[in-house]
Amino acid sequence: MSRTDTYIDENLPRFREELFDFLRIPSVSANADRRPDMQRAADWLAHEMRGAGLEVSVHATAGHPVVLGEWRGAGAGAPTVLIYGHYDVQPAEPLELWTSPPFEPTVRDGRIYARGSVDDKGQLYMHVKALEALARSEGKLPVNVVLVAEGEEEVGSDNLVPFLEQMKNRLACDYVVVSDSGMVAPGIPTIGASLRGLAYFQIDVDGPGKDLHSGSYGGAVLNPATVLCRIIASFHDADWHATIAGFYDQVRPAEEARDQIAQVPFDEEKLREETGAQALVGEKGYATLERLWVRPTVEVNGLLSGYTGEGSKTVLPAHAMAKVSCRLVPDQDPQKIADLFEAHVRRVSPKEGVTVKVTRMHTGLAWRAQLGGPLYEAAARALEAAFGRPPVYAGEGGSIPIVSDFERVLGAPVLLMGFGLPGENAHAPDEWLDIDTWQRGLHASARLLQELAPG
Amino acid sequence: MSRTDTYIDENLPRFREELFDFLRIPSVSANADRRPDMQRAADWLAHEMRGAGLEVSVHATAGHPVVLGEWRGAGAGAPTVLIYGHYDVQPAEPLELWTSPPFEPTVRDGRIYARGSVDDKGQLYMHVKALEALARSEGKLPVNVVLVAEGEEEVGSDNLVPFLEQMKNRLACDYVVVSDSGMVAPGIPTIGASLRGLAYFQIDVDGPGKDLHSGSYGGAVLNPATVLCRIIASFHDADWHATIAGFYDQVRPAEEARDQIAQVPFDEEKLREETGAQALVGEKGYATLERLWVRPTVEVNGLLSGYTGEGSKTVLPAHAMAKVSCRLVPDQDPQKIADLFEAHVRRVSPKEGVTVKVTRMHTGLAWRAQLGGPLYEAAARALEAAFGRPPVYAGEGGSIPIVSDFERVLGAPVLLMGFGLPGENAHAPDEWLDIDTWQRGLHASARLLQELAPG
Repeated sequence: MSRTDTYIDENLPRFREELFDFLRIPSVSANADRRPDMQRAADWLAHEMRGAGLEVSVHATAGHPVVLGEWRGAGAGAPTVLIYGHYDVQPAEPLELWTSPPFEPTVRDGRIYARGSVDDKGQLYMHVKALEALARSEGKLPVNVVLVAEGEEEVGSDNLVPFLEQMKNRLACDYVVVSDSGMVAPGIPTIGASLRGLAYFQIDVDGPGKDLHSGSYGGAVLNPATVLCRIIASFHDADWHATIAGFYDQVRPAEEARDQIAQVPFDEEKLREETGAQALVGEKGYATLERLWVRPTVEVNGLLSGYTGEGSKTVLPAHAMAKVSCRLVPDQDPQKIADLFEAHVRRVSPKEGVTVKVTRMHTGLAWRAQLGGPLYEAAARALEAAFGRPPVYAGEGGSIPIVSDFERVLGAPVLLMGFGLPGENAHAPDEWLDIDTWQRGLHASARLLQELAPG
Repeated sequence: MSRTDTYIDENLPRFREELFDFLRIPSVSANADRRPDMQRAADWLAHEMRGAGLEVSVHATAGHPVVLGEWRGAGAGAPTVLIYGHYDVQPAEPLELWTSPPFEPTVRDGRIYARGSVDDKGQLYMHVKALEALARSEGKLPVNVVLVAEGEEEVGSDNLVPFLEQMKNRLACDYVVVSDSGMVAPGIPTIGASLRGLAYFQIDVDGPGKDLHSGSYGGAVLNPATVLCRIIASFHDADWHATIAGFYDQVRPAEEARDQIAQVPFDEEKLREETGAQALVGEKGYATLERLWVRPTVEVNGLLSGYTGEGSKTVLPAHAMAKVSCRLVPDQDPQKIADLFEAHVRRVSPKEGVTVKVTRMHTGLAWRAQLGGPLYEAAARALEAAFGRPPVYAGEGGSIPIVSDFERVLGAPVLLMGFGLPGENAHAPDEWLDIDTWQRGLHASARLLQELAPG
């Protein structure tokens, strides 16, 4: 056990108390009236980062500030590691579903319950404390470090890319480490192998000039709700393959990922329970993890038309609306997919009687880790040391657009090394962080930097 | 010109003032706080019916009262004619869209603007005044008369059928006359040839136990909104024929109605303008009036699932709901159609991963006039005398379930003889009644009873 590891274990109770202080600040980026709390969280974090030996600056943006920490003492011969995290949290509502108050951290069954405990204050602060442990136990850090903490991850990171582009030279680095994800199961250290991208649309179908009486007019005019349903039904065949022409052209064969996926322990029944669905059902010819990680989807996110209250009303709606999004996989180009999507909707829409409009809401690139190389080798050793077993490489069905942004703007590979656990309620009531896993994460974070040190 | 006709024309200004008093009472049956106004309207009407020579009784129901007027002076050798109307009105909201206040009748361009002017106070009062004209000008009515005015037509007539069944013997009659509909065009007297029936359903699709993140879970579970859209899309083929097995089994060939429909002046472009739709589009192989009058439909009345607010939210909805109704034609049995509908939904629903539930909301029989016989012959003569041309026989796409109820409970044929006009805004702001048409309706109503007199 290294001096750094000893320092971490001995100081863990204090780290925990400090994290509690961080969690008590209700830094909800979505709420305009939490702006003072956002500033307080940024200032608190800046103070703690200074305590860990970093030079810290707080950068105002059009939204919430970015906290930047730097340590360049390892010299030009050592690599520079950029660590990313965020200090903003999701809204806590509905408050009545929390067992203990969301901004009063409470320990139960070895877990810290609080909004932001795992997403992402706990994981961000883990890196801060690992840096402190390295600095105090060894007198210096093993590599140059840049720590970027943003306050807008939960509201779309609108100001992060402009910040990265503006600060590109100062943020230049060899590796990027992001801890804002989870492990596939307790005790199984997990490296993110891929993220899905996104192309999100709204479809509006306009028919009659106003809601009509479905008796007096039904049969004589097209019903926009029916038309919308036919458009949506046209997106998949009977086997749940997407039917949008060209949709799969850039998708790599799932076979390529099968070996990697086979390494990941996966309990299908547990996932089914987690969803509350009767059964897991999806695209024919693919296993569940393939469907989630390496296959794109077309999902309806919302539907609205006509009368939706209690009872019945015989209305023929003037308008019908759907929100539809595609989860994308590498190497699908979101803009190209958006073009194909629009062309498909145009093709299947009636030629007269209704107007069908597709609005592009937003897009995000999918990402695939370039596994291997010094960063991934170091991470594997660090995680094995902390958890007593080598990591697995797991895909993620969701999207973290900033991962691609870091690679694109800074030209450095990104490592996704997260310490959440299944069922952690990241965006739900009773969010929690497992204390034992967090402690192993502290060791892994410190060890990763040591493993990346030159020679 | 008969004495009765002269009486009508001479007294028209007074009739109009009286109708204004009736229209000033805001008898909105849907609003609980209008209950005193409902009673006031019933009492006002009872008083006026007495003034026309009827014996009047006001009958309390579980809802609003039924006003019953009777005159049996024509003796056993004369037929008994039951006239039906309703004194309740639709809510007037949105008030800001009215040019003049809804309960302050105002004359503009030969029309009376007020809530209830055409639906149905104006048409009901027309019969009351025709009875007065006959009684005062001839000293007696030409036939026995029963007048039934209910106060719940706009809220489903829940208490009318129980009233009819309970009073069956007292209400025994040879003919039923209903004036609660319209004419196909100004100057074209119109007899209702058919009404469509209804079978109304709610479809609920339940998938995951809660809304899920569409990234983390999309692809692994069925999306209930997509499933719902596929069910709805399965209701029609590419030509907008319904595909529910057995749906058309009881439907008579449209050819049977073509001659009758050909008599009806119909301006397709005017109907299109009325709907505000780009184009009239419907079931292939049928003309617009056939689609509206003699072909059944399957219409979506409402859709709701997932996120429907502004912007985007990447939710995979737990639940999706649709309101769907079939307009039925004679001789479709609503219960049988409901069985076929449910069987269809079951057949096209996924076998696992979601639960699909169909709820039957309500049903109503379609109706077809048994044209011909003394009632229709008398009506044709009366309308030709009042309008200077013979009537046309027009279908109606909507449903008036009480029409079938009258025929079923009382065993007498029903005549639909209405004096509304296209664009009358019956359930909308700026409802109006055309004064010239109303005057002709007064003559037609009186003449109808004279034509039905024996010998």
